[in-house]
Amino acid sequence: QRRGIPEGILADGKPPEAVASLATTALETTGRALVTRLSDEQFRVLEAAVEDAEAGATIERWSTSALVRSSSYERPSLEATVAIVTAGTVDGPVADEAQVVCEDAGATVDRIDDVGVAALDRILDQTDRIRSADVVVVAAGREGALPTVVAGLVDAPVIAIPVSSGYGHGGDGEAALAGMLQSCTVLSVVNIDAGFVAGAQASLVARAVDRAARTAERE
Amino acid sequence: QRRGIPEGILADGKPPEAVASLATTALETTGRALVTRLSDEQFRVLEAAVEDAEAGATIERWSTSALVRSSSYERPSLEATVAIVTAGTVDGPVADEAQVVCEDAGATVDRIDDVGVAALDRILDQTDRIRSADVVVVAAGREGALPTVVAGLVDAPVIAIPVSSGYGHGGDGEAALAGMLQSCTVLSVVNIDAGFVAGAQASLVARAVDRAARTAERE
Amino acid sequence: QRRGIPEGILADGKPPEAVASLATTALETTGRALVTRLSDEQFRVLEAAVEDAEAGATIERWSTSALVRSSSYERPSLEATVAIVTAGTVDGPVADEAQVVCEDAGATVDRIDDVGVAALDRILDQTDRIRSADVVVVAAGREGALPTVVAGLVDAPVIAIPVSSGYGHGGDGEAALAGMLQSCTVLSVVNIDAGFVAGAQASLVARAVDRAARTAERE
Amino acid sequence: QRRGIPEGILADGKPPEAVASLATTALETTGRALVTRLSDEQFRVLEAAVEDAEAGATIERWSTSALVRSSSYERPSLEATVAIVTAGTVDGPVADEAQVVCEDAGATVDRIDDVGVAALDRILDQTDRIRSADVVVVAAGREGALPTVVAGLVDAPVIAIPVSSGYGHGGDGEAALAGMLQSCTVLSVVNIDAGFVAGAQASLVARAVDRAARTAERE
Amino acid sequence: QRRGIPEGILADGKPPEAVASLATTALETTGRALVTRLSDEQFRVLEAAVEDAEAGATIERWSTSALVRSSSYERPSLEATVAIVTAGTVDGPVADEAQVVCEDAGATVDRIDDVGVAALDRILDQTDRIRSADVVVVAAGREGALPTVVAGLVDAPVIAIPVSSGYGHGGDGEAALAGMLQSCTVLSVVNIDAGFVAGAQASLVARAVDRAARTAERE
Amino acid sequence: QRRGIPEGILADGKPPEAVASLATTALETTGRALVTRLSDEQFRVLEAAVEDAEAGATIERWSTSALVRSSSYERPSLEATVAIVTAGTVDGPVADEAQVVCEDAGATVDRIDDVGVAALDRILDQTDRIRSADVVVVAAGREGALPTVVAGLVDAPVIAIPVSSGYGHGGDGEAALAGMLQSCTVLSVVNIDAGFVAGAQASLVARAVDRAARTAERE
Amino acid sequence: QRRGIPEGILADGKPPEAVASLATTALETTGRALVTRLSDEQFRVLEAAVEDAEAGATIERWSTSALVRSSSYERPSLEATVAIVTAGTVDGPVADEAQVVCEDAGATVDRIDDVGVAALDRILDQTDRIRSADVVVVAAGREGALPTVVAGLVDAPVIAIPVSSGYGHGGDGEAALAGMLQSCTVLSVVNIDAGFVAGAQASLVARAVDRAARTAERE
Amino acid sequence: QRRGIPEGILADGKPPEAVASLATTALETTGRALVTRLSDEQFRVLEAAVEDAEAGATIERWSTSALVRSSSYERPSLEATVAIVTAGTVDGPVADEAQVVCEDAGATVDRIDDVGVAALDRILDQTDRIRSADVVVVAAGREGALPTVVAGLVDAPVIAIPVSSGYGHGGDGEAALAGMLQSCTVLSVVNIDAGFVAGAQASLVARAVDRAARTAERE
Ligand SMILES: Nc1ncnc2c1ncn2[C@@H]1O[C@H](COP(=O)(O)O)[C@@H](O)[C@H]1O
Ligand SMILES: Nc1ncnc2c1ncn2[C@@H]1O[C@H](COP(=O)(O)O)[C@@H](O)[C@H]1O
Ligand SMILES: Nc1ncnc2c1ncn2[C@@H]1O[C@H](COP(=O)(O)O)[C@@H](O)[C@H]1O
Ligand SMILES: Nc1ncnc2c1ncn2[C@@H]1O[C@H](COP(=O)(O)O)[C@@H](O)[C@H]1O
Ligand SMILES: [Mg+2]
Ligand SMILES: [Mg+2]
Ligand SMILES: [Mg+2]
Ligand SMILES: [Mg+2]
Ligand SMILES: [Mg+2]
Ligand SMILES: [Mg+2]
Ligand SMILES: [Mg+2]
Ligand SMILES: [Mg+2]
Repeated sequence: QRRGIPEGILADGKPPEAVASLATTALETTGRALVTRLSDEQFRVLEAAVEDAEAGATIERWSTSALVRSSSYERPSLEATVAIVTAGTVDGPVADEAQVVCEDAGATVDRIDDVGVAALDRILDQTDRIRSADVVVVAAGREGALPTVVAGLVDAPVIAIPVSSGYGHGGDGEAALAGMLQSCTVLSVVNIDAGFVAGAQASLVARAVDRAARTAERE
Repeated sequence: QRRGIPEGILADGKPPEAVASLATTALETTGRALVTRLSDEQFRVLEAAVEDAEAGATIERWSTSALVRSSSYERPSLEATVAIVTAGTVDGPVADEAQVVCEDAGATVDRIDDVGVAALDRILDQTDRIRSADVVVVAAGREGALPTVVAGLVDAPVIAIPVSSGYGHGGDGEAALAGMLQSCTVLSVVNIDAGFVAGAQASLVARAVDRAARTAERE
Repeated sequence: QRRGIPEGILADGKPPEAVASLATTALETTGRALVTRLSDEQFRVLEAAVEDAEAGATIERWSTSALVRSSSYERPSLEATVAIVTAGTVDGPVADEAQVVCEDAGATVDRIDDVGVAALDRILDQTDRIRSADVVVVAAGREGALPTVVAGLVDAPVIAIPVSSGYGHGGDGEAALAGMLQSCTVLSVVNIDAGFVAGAQASLVARAVDRAARTAERE
Repeated sequence: QRRGIPEGILADGKPPEAVASLATTALETTGRALVTRLSDEQFRVLEAAVEDAEAGATIERWSTSALVRSSSYERPSLEATVAIVTAGTVDGPVADEAQVVCEDAGATVDRIDDVGVAALDRILDQTDRIRSADVVVVAAGREGALPTVVAGLVDAPVIAIPVSSGYGHGGDGEAALAGMLQSCTVLSVVNIDAGFVAGAQASLVARAVDRAARTAERE
Repeated sequence: QRRGIPEGILADGKPPEAVASLATTALETTGRALVTRLSDEQFRVLEAAVEDAEAGATIERWSTSALVRSSSYERPSLEATVAIVTAGTVDGPVADEAQVVCEDAGATVDRIDDVGVAALDRILDQTDRIRSADVVVVAAGREGALPTVVAGLVDAPVIAIPVSSGYGHGGDGEAALAGMLQSCTVLSVVNIDAGFVAGAQASLVARAVDRAARTAERE
Repeated sequence: QRRGIPEGILADGKPPEAVASLATTALETTGRALVTRLSDEQFRVLEAAVEDAEAGATIERWSTSALVRSSSYERPSLEATVAIVTAGTVDGPVADEAQVVCEDAGATVDRIDDVGVAALDRILDQTDRIRSADVVVVAAGREGALPTVVAGLVDAPVIAIPVSSGYGHGGDGEAALAGMLQSCTVLSVVNIDAGFVAGAQASLVARAVDRAARTAERE
Repeated sequence: QRRGIPEGILADGKPPEAVASLATTALETTGRALVTRLSDEQFRVLEAAVEDAEAGATIERWSTSALVRSSSYERPSLEATVAIVTAGTVDGPVADEAQVVCEDAGATVDRIDDVGVAALDRILDQTDRIRSADVVVVAAGREGALPTVVAGLVDAPVIAIPVSSGYGHGGDGEAALAGMLQSCTVLSVVNIDAGFVAGAQASLVARAVDRAARTAERE
Repeated sequence: QRRGIPEGILADGKPPEAVASLATTALETTGRALVTRLSDEQFRVLEAAVEDAEAGATIERWSTSALVRSSSYERPSLEATVAIVTAGTVDGPVADEAQVVCEDAGATVDRIDDVGVAALDRILDQTDRIRSADVVVVAAGREGALPTVVAGLVDAPVIAIPVSSGYGHGGDGEAALAGMLQSCTVLSVVNIDAGFVAGAQASLVARAVDRAARTAERE
């Protein structure tokens, strides 16, 4: 539970039983677990294992992720907002990984979907919403231009996630990653499809913001 | 003089005398020559050689390019406009290669500089100008997002040039090239820094447009 | 329906129901949809969904692509011809993507297959046909030399599509892409297997040509 | 002056006069400028140009960077601390870029040098200092392991800079970049040698923290 | 049996019968065989074939590897210890390949699991155990920082194995490989997932150590 | 003097004295030496050293190569012809390396320059000459399409040399190399700019042809 | 039937019916066809189709290749020998592709298997056999060192085939390809796994040798 | 002085004064320093600085490396031999880095030069010498096949160094590195040109061997 982030378990490529066992161990020791890149079969085995492990435990599914929580776990509440922005529908599951981490960390999440740069008015229409967040996560595939455009509109730090939604040269997310690293604005980047990491990094910023507010209030 | 495009001579890496001799030969046989990626020294030698070769010949310098023309050469005139757009000042010499080819082919060129995506209002302010062109060339380095944004604003074909102006991962133009190939709008691409090729391709479109207009007029 | 191009839906990797729902939404809002990289199962589900969505709607299959049109949709007609050339039979489905976009945009398409550079007389025999087009699309895999050869024969702009039909070093289309970007003639390039994009770019050129002719006629 | 970050001017590869002119323009319009990757000659020309441009203007040199400020410019002051950590002496100039941005943005900077992972006690000895920062920047070359180790020790967000100080396979910063993107802890990354970007992103976090504190105080 | 290392047979991609036949041939001619990267089905066929080939032969399974030995084979015994260290559970099967080779070569193996660099106290707690080995093998995926940290703690030679357990940029083991090659300490490296090679190289060091001790004892 | 090929000495990056000493040693022991990638200064030092080493020795310069021969060396004569074909003038020095090896091995060389694929009639005009060779070497840069076209015209084996004459993506010869490896005809390839190797391989074919003829004549 | 090489049909990735139809067309027009990279199912469909197409046609299977011949086809006979050498058993199917082409072209083939460089005596034992060939094909995977060693032993031209039999960094044949291109002896190379191309190139050399012998005999 | 290895200082790219100051600091604190990749100018400045720093200090030059030692430093002596083998003369400076480390660590070094695989008898002639070493370092460029051949001949561990002595595809040492990682024998690898690291790793093995012998003697 270091840094307020739930333990992340990457299901991809592991046997369903192994995933379930890693998750229930985390549930028992830390009160929760976040499993990412789950297949339907892995989800079913996990669901059954969670039920067996603790009567009141809940399991919440977010496209390819699942958040498991003990009935005794009390989620913190942060005075901070994270905007999570996607370019297209294919970016959804990656953004969901980020969102579930932020919500679990206690941040307020404002999710803004489908505002890719091919039609600029869609993103420009959302400027005020994005500007009211303390930190912004932007997921985009193909050429990955959206984070640059968003960072040009807001004052808050932007964390960019390249998504592996293209095809051909650079289509596995490498074009988007390289573009984000080359951004002519200020932003920082996580690995391809690393929604979990971006959400966790945004949560750490939200926690720093929240801590500052609480400290100031106490004074 | 195939396709109305001047002979292109890439000076980079050649001895000044070799460049001058290739250019004066082209001058004598086709009435003109376009030399690209010239150093100052190569330019001086070329200038002298052109003077020697033909009394009335002119030499026009465009940043790193030079257009040599015989006094007897008559430039055609096309009923077509090419917009040439750059993201930043470092894209200038590459866009100049494109511009000199288009002008030599007889097209009207509308040059629009410094409208990179980090400040969207600059490009949005130019929408009408760009929309009035028959074909658009866009040069951009770093993440190379500008052609996608322009292609989202106009109806004409967009030809994108990735520029090698970055540093670090993908900074040699590879990030921009990959991003342009992955563009979520419709555009076509030339090689990194290939201003000459983009200008020539735009000229071919301008010639097709001009031909259609003249044919229709004759009918 | 921006730029006269049908909405493109990439089926590859999406559940059949998602593909069908994206396509019927496009059908209802824009009168048509072009679905690319369809499996047989995705096609069956799409076909049923289109039938359900609108009584008179038609669905046309082109190897791995499908064009869906409302009975009320009226296809425009352009005074412009696109030649679409392939090197070999494996380039067929990629060229089909390009062809269906061009036809839907209203251009006349002249399709010339199987004229790869290993037997030059086949392509030389077609010189006159290719020369009579306003814009040329060339799809080629392996070393991707065909677009360069075609661009050496014609006056119209050439748009090259690298095809992922090889094996070994560069066989995923990277050799063809790099070769086309390095072409010693003038041409522009789209991403590997991006038939849709090449067809759309050719349509934009055809529309510019058609617009010029109509404007001239009106004058 | 968007986002409180001084205009960044990359000197590398530009003629000294061009650098000086870009910097004095920024000085006149925004009151300051940060020039990075300066040679000695570029610095001398810049220094003279700044003197000419404004009597009271100051120029501060930080290894390869220079911060130019108008006498009328008032630096803000943020209630937030940025720790800047380096693995070895070769990381110094890159970390300096980050530091000068953070100081100019008004943050308190705590600089901790030469604590690379080959001798763990050096970094462990600094744990308390690093833990008292609101956000941490870590610059490391070769295998780039230091940011992961730091992120395992602190609760604040960590921004990692890969440095191009190696040789052989991956020695141009690519090994460090890939390692940081693969980090098994939570952190975000900027491009190779992009000290300016990392410093600016840390400043944005510091500004968010400061804003939260001031807002809470007002309430 | 050159160099005391069992014949290694890579099962991956071979038909089960071919694997079984290669292994039983090695069993008959050298008294043993080590098969790596076995599927469950390949294991079953191998098990049956070994039984058929020799009555008393044994087969030992180690995650994805299997060691086959004749009843007449006498394992040597070396006066040398190899420590085998892993960063996380996903590194287990690769480390198992190394361990089975070392044990078969006659070395004492001390296996230390799950001491990745994200939580430094776990590896620091094991310093004494690792220090008492004659040679150390370290398997780590993602950013592959563990071998560098271990090499900073011990005096013995360290052999590093990059593991392909990541995702995104460098996730196929390339980030770990590049990082290990760039290590700022002294270590040598084997190919991605090459547990067999690392174990064999460690065995050769153990044999050199053992030989020196025996020679000295005789003198 | 294995295989009838002169000792090849790569001058590039070596001190002039080291080059001269390697060459004179080869001269003394084998009667000749071929030095490639010579600078002007290296050539001058070599020339003087050869004169010093042997009174009657000759040195022949071929663009960047130099062939040194003892007065006592007797060049063999092969009943076989090698055609050496280049796409453009920049391919000259690489083709020269091949030519000097072939001539020194005793083959008849037919050199055909400047027949790149952008203007097909130039190469088609040379069909008969190329067809009368026993083996063909083709050097081409940029997209490297010429060897494929030549191999489609002749019956003899074709050996292709990719030349590093481009710029941008694949411009260092990688595009040409990949294209030649992907050729849809039959040919074999040597490394980028490896004129010496291609000439030597062609000489080995010429020697096999010559040997067959002589053997048959004797019978 | 250009150049005496049977039409090659790459089965991989094509529907069985398409493969069968391409092969029977070639059978009918040229008297034979060589199909490579066949699955078992594709082979069965092909076998049936050949039977249907022509009563007396034969089909010969060589691991993953199949040679189809009309009863009326008369294989030529060349006075030339090709040695085909493999490093290990995994190189077998690739070498088989080469062998079937050479035999069909009429050359005598001498096949030498399993002489990889890890045990030098195996290859040294075969020196005389290899030396008696007119041209040598060598297939090797992993580090691909065998062709260099063979080329050091013989006087005939060596054609090297890199095989994709490794794993990890460079394991897809890229390490072997790069090593062969860098060979410190003289050899030429074909693409990864391109047994067909290597066999065809060796056949062209054999044909040149045979032609020379016959011409000399006639004289 | 951890692990008995002198402090390594990489001179390349550092100002001569910085190199000298790092070296004299190391001299004063640890009694010695090894500076690698020195230019002539850096060497001169270093030499003067060492003289100034300590009257009796010595400086030994080894091609591009220099070993500095205090008069009070006592070199240990190990009962262990390291064979250092090179393929060609260009590998010399890299092997020298390894040799100076090993000698400074106290091992006996047996240096064997110029035994590349193109002429196998040279390496076979040295088999006995190589076999009598406790550990073997092999430096090779181009295709890097020599370490595999050596590892096939000896029982001791082999540490391979890829050298950046080639040109074209893979010529910067990447071909040799990939080939060594793919070796079909057992060996471990260091980064391209990393003679220092290979020598240090060999010294660690030599120290383990020496320790075992001394321990056994005491018992
Ligand atoms: N989707 C994800 N992206 C990145 N890291 C993840 C993800 N899911 C889990 N992790 C992290 O991966 C590591 C788990 O590795 P493992 O021990 O192999 O399960 C932990 O550090 C997790 O926090
Ligand atoms: N800047 C440029 N970019 C791309 N191609 C160019 C450029 N300048 C000249 N060329 C073309 O390069 C070829 C010249 O090749 P070369 O014969 O080597 O000078 C011709 O086809 C020119 O049209
Ligand atoms: N075959 C194709 N190649 C390239 N782009 C396509 C293709 N099919 C659809 N598209 C485009 O991909 C985008 C669809 O993205 P998505 O929202 O993820 O379905 C749209 O811009 C389409 O026009
Ligand atoms: N030639 C070399 N190859 C590899 N590492 C070296 C070399 N020379 C010095 N080093 C190491 O590089 C590090 C020095 O880094 P720096 O602090 O930048 O001088 C130390 O760990 C040295 O042991
Ligand atoms: Mg996007
Ligand atoms: Mg840009
Ligand atoms: Mg092709
Ligand atoms: Mg570091
Ligand atoms: Mg790890
Ligand atoms: Mg060419
Ligand atoms: Mg091999
Ligand atoms: Mg070598």
